[in-house]
Amino acid sequence: MSLNLQTHTQHFTNPLYLESGRILEPYDITYETYGHINEDKSNVIVITHALTGSHHAAGYYEDENKAGWWDGLIGSKKAIDTDKYFVICTNVIGSCFGSTGPMSPQTPHQEPYRYKFPVVSIKDMVKAQRILFDRLDIHRVEAIIGGSMGGMQALQFAIHYPNFAKKIIPLATTYATQAWAIAFNKVAQEAILKDPDFKQGYYDPELIKEQGLTGMAIGRMAGHISFLSHESMKEKFAREYKRDDGLYELFGKFQVESYLEYNGYNFTKWFDPLTYLYITKAINIYDLGRGFDSLQEAFKKITAELHLISFRNDLLFKNSEMKTISDTLHEIGNKNHTYIDIDSDYGHDAFLVEIEKFEHYIKDALDG
Amino acid sequence: MSLNLQTHTQHFTNPLYLESGRILEPYDITYETYGHINEDKSNVIVITHALTGSHHAAGYYEDENKAGWWDGLIGSKKAIDTDKYFVICTNVIGSCFGSTGPMSPQTPHQEPYRYKFPVVSIKDMVKAQRILFDRLDIHRVEAIIGGSMGGMQALQFAIHYPNFAKKIIPLATTYATQAWAIAFNKVAQEAILKDPDFKQGYYDPELIKEQGLTGMAIGRMAGHISFLSHESMKEKFAREYKRDDGLYELFGKFQVESYLEYNGYNFTKWFDPLTYLYITKAINIYDLGRGFDSLQEAFKKITAELHLISFRNDLLFKNSEMKTISDTLHEIGNKNHTYIDIDSDYGHDAFLVEIEKFEHYIKDALDG
Repeated sequence: MSLNLQTHTQHFTNPLYLESGRILEPYDITYETYGHINEDKSNVIVITHALTGSHHAAGYYEDENKAGWWDGLIGSKKAIDTDKYFVICTNVIGSCFGSTGPMSPQTPHQEPYRYKFPVVSIKDMVKAQRILFDRLDIHRVEAIIGGSMGGMQALQFAIHYPNFAKKIIPLATTYATQAWAIAFNKVAQEAILKDPDFKQGYYDPELIKEQGLTGMAIGRMAGHISFLSHESMKEKFAREYKRDDGLYELFGKFQVESYLEYNGYNFTKWFDPLTYLYITKAINIYDLGRGFDSLQEAFKKITAELHLISFRNDLLFKNSEMKTISDTLHEIGNKNHTYIDIDSDYGHDAFLVEIEKFEHYIKDALDG
Repeated sequence: MSLNLQTHTQHFTNPLYLESGRILEPYDITYETYGHINEDKSNVIVITHALTGSHHAAGYYEDENKAGWWDGLIGSKKAIDTDKYFVICTNVIGSCFGSTGPMSPQTPHQEPYRYKFPVVSIKDMVKAQRILFDRLDIHRVEAIIGGSMGGMQALQFAIHYPNFAKKIIPLATTYATQAWAIAFNKVAQEAILKDPDFKQGYYDPELIKEQGLTGMAIGRMAGHISFLSHESMKEKFAREYKRDDGLYELFGKFQVESYLEYNGYNFTKWFDPLTYLYITKAINIYDLGRGFDSLQEAFKKITAELHLISFRNDLLFKNSEMKTISDTLHEIGNKNHTYIDIDSDYGHDAFLVEIEKFEHYIKDALDG
């Protein structure tokens, strides 16, 4: 069967009450669907995306030569089988890919929000999605699956909307963002904020499209380090030197340097720096225990089946953090969860790259 | 006994032939000594410093309230006992603390070298030190001890001047800098180079003293991450928030963010950005096997006793890299070495911070 990829945007005029006490109003949510919804709407799977991801999780747009970010996992006969399931992936609020974010026009004057955009939390992102699903008349789904910040959303769903999903499958994520990850985000935020071209958010989009934004590129380079590992970098680059560059030239480059440079600057041509500030902020303040006396109390809200997946050599959200989730569930007597630590040297991005290592766990969890 | 701290600078007019084929001429080397040399000069220990270190390894200068960087280890009755040993720590060439570096005046016109300064390697640094020791009429020493880039120098000494030291004690270092460490250096280099205030090295020292250099501060923040670990950052900062900052304020700060900011910007007030470029370059191109058919062949040159010390959770130079050194020595039948992996969660900086965990190994190695 065809993937039946469809992209939609819904507009909401009711205020979205945010965790901060502020309001977002009105707002749009862009989302993508794959497969076909069945008559009683009982075959829905929600995919939640990571920091720089979008709703485009699978398939190709016309004239696109790169598929959606989890195309290896989502599609006909794949682990998340679109012959069977109707899959929805929603662009988070705060993003720059269609849902309302800091560069969206603020009513009534239609100027971009910029710093006037409210801080949104992972909990807020999930709340907005829940409102979207309400409008789509979807009140219960088979599963919510996501990695990294997507896993944070999945877990927030489990705690705050316990009856919404039968199964929750978070990958490569944590219960609360730790200082190590906040530190990497800090490098990027500082680099963006101090870039003279950024001008407190009044940057020139044309300039960025042509040259890229230096500060964000530098920050992204730091980000790339956190997504990989010693082992994956060693395997990918070794100590290879860029052809024609001399070892004793001050600006001669190792392959790993060229890689970071290319990806750092290229990133700034397709991602908005204000969104980077806001989404990394959302990740930094993510803490499942907030509003509860303890993490245990938060986890007592969960009724869904949980299937936790970590990666052994994830340096951004360590497998020990996922183990804390599993241990905490054990402590409160939760018997409705599984936890697997995938043997991988790749690092954090294993959840995007090494699909063959975990797709069967997802398939089994969905079939079970 | 008193520490007998003395600081000297020696001037050399003979050319220093560098690995690159270029020449440095003339050049200065600044060094510091502690303790008293004995009559037959048989009680000398050499200390080699790390990236941002200097010759000031122990004791206090007048009006200084912070001791040298390894003061816990070096002094009367300490592991490196200055009652017994005469200790020398040399500022590497390329540095900004007295030895000739990129901001030193270039003869004949006396303008700073800036980018005209030649790329120096760790091997070059060691060669210059060897020439200094010759002038001091020191032709054989008890030990060379250093961590991180200091360990690189110690190992280069062992291979290229096999008769110079009886014992070599490298800590928290590697046999060749791997892509992971090069990547962190890349972030810093890029941030410095793209800082508009840096002006290709024509920066204003006064401006830097007042405000700091943004690019180097950002790069240093990334560096700090690599020196620590998830565990040490979690222990140090948890998810503590800066007093008076709001969680939902876009620019509200976690403690870890304040720490990085303070240390990042403060660093730029005492360290030269051109030196940062040149020293990180030296670290990047460090490879003990260069010039040999293999690492084994390089290690066959070694005749000194080797005492290798790594730290379990060093994320910059992984303990597996030190283990590779030990394994390679075993492979070639070297029986004259020991290897200890210190149980530590601190990260790379454990060699500076957790002295109580390894000082007895150093003492035993020196006494043995």
